[in-house]
Amino acid sequence: MASPSKRINAIQQHLTPQQKHAQAVDPVASMKEERAKAAFDIRQLTYLLDGGEKSTLLKERFMLDFERDPLFKMDDIHDISKEQLRERTMEKFRSLVHHLSNESLDVFRKRMEIVSLIDPGFWTRFGVHYGLFVGALQSNATSGQLGYWFQRGALSLTGMVGCFAMTELGHGSNVPGLETTATFDEAADQFIIHTPTLTATKWWIGGAAHSATHSAVFAQLVVKGKKYGTKCFVVPLRDPKTYDTLPGINIGDLGKKMGRDGIDNGYIQFTNVRIPRGYMLMKHTQVSRSGRVKEPKLQQLTYGALLQGRVAMVVDSGNVSKKALTIAVRYAAVRRQFSSSNSDIETKLLDYPIHQRRLMPLMAQTFAMLFTGNEMTAMYNRMMGRLENAKADDPDLAEVLEMLKETHSTSAGLKAFCTWNCLSTIEACRQACGGHGYSAYTGLAGMYQDFAVQCTWEGDNTILTLQLGRYLISSYREALSGKKLSPGVGYLNSLDTLIGKRCRVANNEFLVDPAVIMEGWQVVCAHVVRNAALEFQECIDRGLDVDDAYEHCSQSRLYAAKLHSYGYLFNRFVDGVTKVEGSLRSVLMDVCLLYGLYTIEENAGAFLQYEFFSPQQMEYIRNKTNELCAAVRDQAIPLVDSFNLSDYMVNSPLGRADGNVYVHYFDQVKQSNPQGPHPYFERLIKPLLERQLDSSDVEDDEAGLESEDDEDEE
Amino acid sequence: MASPSKRINAIQQHLTPQQKHAQAVDPVASMKEERAKAAFDIRQLTYLLDGGEKSTLLKERFMLDFERDPLFKMDDIHDISKEQLRERTMEKFRSLVHHLSNESLDVFRKRMEIVSLIDPGFWTRFGVHYGLFVGALQSNATSGQLGYWFQRGALSLTGMVGCFAMTELGHGSNVPGLETTATFDEAADQFIIHTPTLTATKWWIGGAAHSATHSAVFAQLVVKGKKYGTKCFVVPLRDPKTYDTLPGINIGDLGKKMGRDGIDNGYIQFTNVRIPRGYMLMKHTQVSRSGRVKEPKLQQLTYGALLQGRVAMVVDSGNVSKKALTIAVRYAAVRRQFSSSNSDIETKLLDYPIHQRRLMPLMAQTFAMLFTGNEMTAMYNRMMGRLENAKADDPDLAEVLEMLKETHSTSAGLKAFCTWNCLSTIEACRQACGGHGYSAYTGLAGMYQDFAVQCTWEGDNTILTLQLGRYLISSYREALSGKKLSPGVGYLNSLDTLIGKRCRVANNEFLVDPAVIMEGWQVVCAHVVRNAALEFQECIDRGLDVDDAYEHCSQSRLYAAKLHSYGYLFNRFVDGVTKVEGSLRSVLMDVCLLYGLYTIEENAGAFLQYEFFSPQQMEYIRNKTNELCAAVRDQAIPLVDSFNLSDYMVNSPLGRADGNVYVHYFDQVKQSNPQGPHPYFERLIKPLLERQLDSSDVEDDEAGLESEDDEDEE
Repeated sequence: MASPSKRINAIQQHLTPQQKHAQAVDPVASMKEERAKAAFDIRQLTYLLDGGEKSTLLKERFMLDFERDPLFKMDDIHDISKEQLRERTMEKFRSLVHHLSNESLDVFRKRMEIVSLIDPGFWTRFGVHYGLFVGALQSNATSGQLGYWFQRGALSLTGMVGCFAMTELGHGSNVPGLETTATFDEAADQFIIHTPTLTATKWWIGGAAHSATHSAVFAQLVVKGKKYGTKCFVVPLRDPKTYDTLPGINIGDLGKKMGRDGIDNGYIQFTNVRIPRGYMLMKHTQVSRSGRVKEPKLQQLTYGALLQGRVAMVVDSGNVSKKALTIAVRYAAVRRQFSSSNSDIETKLLDYPIHQRRLMPLMAQTFAMLFTGNEMTAMYNRMMGRLENAKADDPDLAEVLEMLKETHSTSAGLKAFCTWNCLSTIEACRQACGGHGYSAYTGLAGMYQDFAVQCTWEGDNTILTLQLGRYLISSYREALSGKKLSPGVGYLNSLDTLIGKRCRVANNEFLVDPAVIMEGWQVVCAHVVRNAALEFQECIDRGLDVDDAYEHCSQSRLYAAKLHSYGYLFNRFVDGVTKVEGSLRSVLMDVCLLYGLYTIEENAGAFLQYEFFSPQQMEYIRNKTNELCAAVRDQAIPLVDSFNLSDYMVNSPLGRADGNVYVHYFDQVKQSNPQGPHPYFERLIKPLLERQLDSSDVEDDEAGLESEDDEDEE
Repeated sequence: MASPSKRINAIQQHLTPQQKHAQAVDPVASMKEERAKAAFDIRQLTYLLDGGEKSTLLKERFMLDFERDPLFKMDDIHDISKEQLRERTMEKFRSLVHHLSNESLDVFRKRMEIVSLIDPGFWTRFGVHYGLFVGALQSNATSGQLGYWFQRGALSLTGMVGCFAMTELGHGSNVPGLETTATFDEAADQFIIHTPTLTATKWWIGGAAHSATHSAVFAQLVVKGKKYGTKCFVVPLRDPKTYDTLPGINIGDLGKKMGRDGIDNGYIQFTNVRIPRGYMLMKHTQVSRSGRVKEPKLQQLTYGALLQGRVAMVVDSGNVSKKALTIAVRYAAVRRQFSSSNSDIETKLLDYPIHQRRLMPLMAQTFAMLFTGNEMTAMYNRMMGRLENAKADDPDLAEVLEMLKETHSTSAGLKAFCTWNCLSTIEACRQACGGHGYSAYTGLAGMYQDFAVQCTWEGDNTILTLQLGRYLISSYREALSGKKLSPGVGYLNSLDTLIGKRCRVANNEFLVDPAVIMEGWQVVCAHVVRNAALEFQECIDRGLDVDDAYEHCSQSRLYAAKLHSYGYLFNRFVDGVTKVEGSLRSVLMDVCLLYGLYTIEENAGAFLQYEFFSPQQMEYIRNKTNELCAAVRDQAIPLVDSFNLSDYMVNSPLGRADGNVYVHYFDQVKQSNPQGPHPYFERLIKPLLERQLDSSDVEDDEAGLESEDDEDEE
């Protein structure tokens, strides 16, 4: 009997033209063909992105855990109601609480990172308790208070569920401007928590509508008629035995949102609610029995923990972009549309230069964000390590505060830059899937709706970008005064060499070099930061105070911060690439250079404005960017495979690893929409189609007349 | 008794500081204050935008009609299920059918324009029958066939509802590549409509799931084994008396989408379905009883009607942007956040230079799109006027075909450019509303989800932009051969003077001049079109065939088409402004100049690349753009008022004309989410909070160990 391969050949020879054609356009075959192009060890790249084999294996264990857990079934998520979704989301708490108390924190964090990609709504709802409420306790409570609340079940989630009540209907970013008051009643040794106006209503409070028994409330501390600013208080909301709201507590449901409907966001109004004095968290500011207020020497030291969310969002932006690109790139590898003149087989989307232009730069940007996320996490951990033991009287306190300042503004700028990048990546991927991107079942629409909030919460992106801009201006001024700056802004120490510098390469090919690109970004950033600083100085000279001066030059600040972030990401990418060797390095170098040249092209205005590149060099860069798109396209499927997201994680028929997109898509649509009797034919359609026409329904002339009459009336 | 004003003063004097503060931040007062700034006659601007007083009055009549019609209640739209939404959407048919048969077509079109802003889902579902199905009959049926189908009720919507079955699961933009076959059975004098493969399944068919009895099906005509390309056939789908599907017809529901869930999109599979030969629409291609196929001399003449949708979407982009900006700008006029150092009253968002930068250029772009939409409509009507009487043997046929070509590519490019602009405007407005932009009730999230499809349907935006790019290249080549081009691309006739031209003004102030800006766009566009054409020529010289050559230079084509569109919109804006006089002209001129300078800044790379502007001039333009943002901000509320959308139309508490945003928003949220008993406390939360902890839930060390064991296992 003939060998399998022989038999296949034999079969091949007897294929009809139709069969041969069908085989040529078979999506599964197309995907195999792409996968076979791998010019590097995919697994090694996965380890690199995950931070080591151990971490990859852990992630894979968690992906399997969730995939097999019926509570985490996700394929019907688009068709259940908000009410069903919320209930199912609550149902997931128990299993995660178990893991939380049985895993080391690092391991559990990885688990949460995976769940955030599967079900961002649940991730947020769970994070409201453990990230925000417990986090507020940890950063604001004395050790005694912390012990008290942990005793009461804050960590084990027994007897209480917490929420975080900071924002108000009329106040988001401006925390010092919050209206809710906490007035000390000396006689009763209690605080009176009160909502004085409609705009003071606590708003967007995750978990308030159905989950929380307690709330970390941020309110204006008032003692003996004097205001001491916004402090944090624990306020009971509901009786844990019945979930009835307590006297003076009014809670409402905020209802339907753009996405993340698994979270029960609500509003809270307090009407003269009394809490014991001890419920004010007094790690930083203390109020004594007699109403003496002791304020902290170093307010800054309280901010550290607030940065964790931003750092997580930089990481999340890279991860969500992975997911979006896995869908769009795999679909483009098997979707065919139009055939070139010399073939009747349609061309893969991925083979169109324009489609490469749509997706490959976003792929490059995703790698840049992934490397940046790792570095940002490391910077945060270094800073917190120092901060936690920092005392007001530390000799090296200045250095710690410097680290805090750098981490604060870097995380602010990157949170904004990366969440914006990720959101537009999702939408670009959705549009790259054509009409099918509009179906809920292909996953990108929901991904957009879930992710969109990241551009606003934990600091509005525009405001955060301006904070980075402010840091850049002050760093520039410090550099002028001779201070040695921290690495991220170190280039501002060499202004003399950077300002006015031009790229003089003997040959355009030398432009495609990380060193040249890095220098280009430094030169351009030095210019835009300087412009912002000069504009700021002018305002000061004109007599504006510091804040108004910063407002006035906000557009230059924003511009400087954006360009600085481009350069920052490219540097992180280069750092990452230089850590690897061999085939992995060469493929990543293409991706890295694509990111560099693409972002230069995107910001051509700045590079030409400051004449670092000549128009001719810029033209060369445009063409080179096309070439690099083609080069990266060649490895596109191996690259998304290295993201190592299981079909369950991707949860989109268009992103299936096997490439069998049409079968999976059709099955999902059928299974999600079982056929039933016509819902409203008898009531609505039948009477419409069988109605008797009255004259006005048929005679067009009369209709024309009538409508003219109408107009005359006016 | 004292006069009212005296009495108010008296009251003012007795206000407590709290009361004075409350009054100062009162959103209603803030809105009045903004409205009072009007430096032009708002009503006159409304007339200008609407195309005359008569048209404004008509729109206002329709807005009132819909507002009072309980069927068109929209404030609960975010909380009803897909099933309820679809049923309600069908319910709206009857009232509109009545108007359709009692109003002249022009009047009815205005009504549809209004309804498209109120309920885009219904507008589409209704448009599927009247726009697509009836449109397909009108452009493909012989007069006899048209009469037959109208007799059967196609126009009066009696006895039949139509849908439009063009796209397939595996084929969107590539209409010639559709797989569905229509094979002529000579013996039976019938066509056999068949779906040969899964990918041939008709997909995204609006109205298929629950509405349509008949379908205009696009299929490959096969006669005597020979293929004649894609033609249009009327295929009955359901029995109008029972709505049971007919033998051989399989229909499924496509279910949940990103938006527009009022439309019942479905899929259709045909299994050897037989229709009479006469059901093929034979205006252009005829198949005789004996199977003789007569094909049209001029295929192009059949395309005209297909452009109507694109033209409508250019207009829609301007209108939807109006709605989005009404919300974001009115909210910014009353929302206050942070106070400048010398005041305890928080600052209006609209007073922040950065917020002006976020919204004012989009306002300018919206006006540019509105003027462009009017011009595009006029161009289309001129073209159709000529086309409808055009015969293959017309003497001036060449001229008609030229008009068709111009309208075709202009509408293609503008549809893409304007829908992209509108989508990003909606998202920018949503983000400009901060956290509240994420609530479904503030309207912008749903607006985004509904609008997003416009970037894909009726031609994928990227493909349409490339079509314009192709037209630009061919126009360039015709210009070289001495041909006089049509106005839109007329500048390509003066390449010699444009290429290499620089802006030489004695003084930077002269840069802020429509003539200079228009010339700048011409110069830049001449350069990028030439580059694309040269790249194309190179490919031809290298031996590529025309199609492959166009593919290869697609990035340059896309770039050229985008810049051309910027210039085109600016020109339309200038045309519009020059038509008016006095105060209206001066305020519009600011808006127009803002659009011009902002778009130059956005494309600084091109203006510097071709050295039309020097770096110094570009710096001046950046600063001037800031100033113009401030100037337009001053009139921002009067300008959005001129859009003349009623509160019902805007359907967002943040966009209310009276500025009382918090009260309206709070009421909407409360009314949309009535309080009931806790949905799942007993089942889920109680057992969680009252569970008994086993040891592993408490001892952290043990948990730490355990997780280490896990890792060792790996």
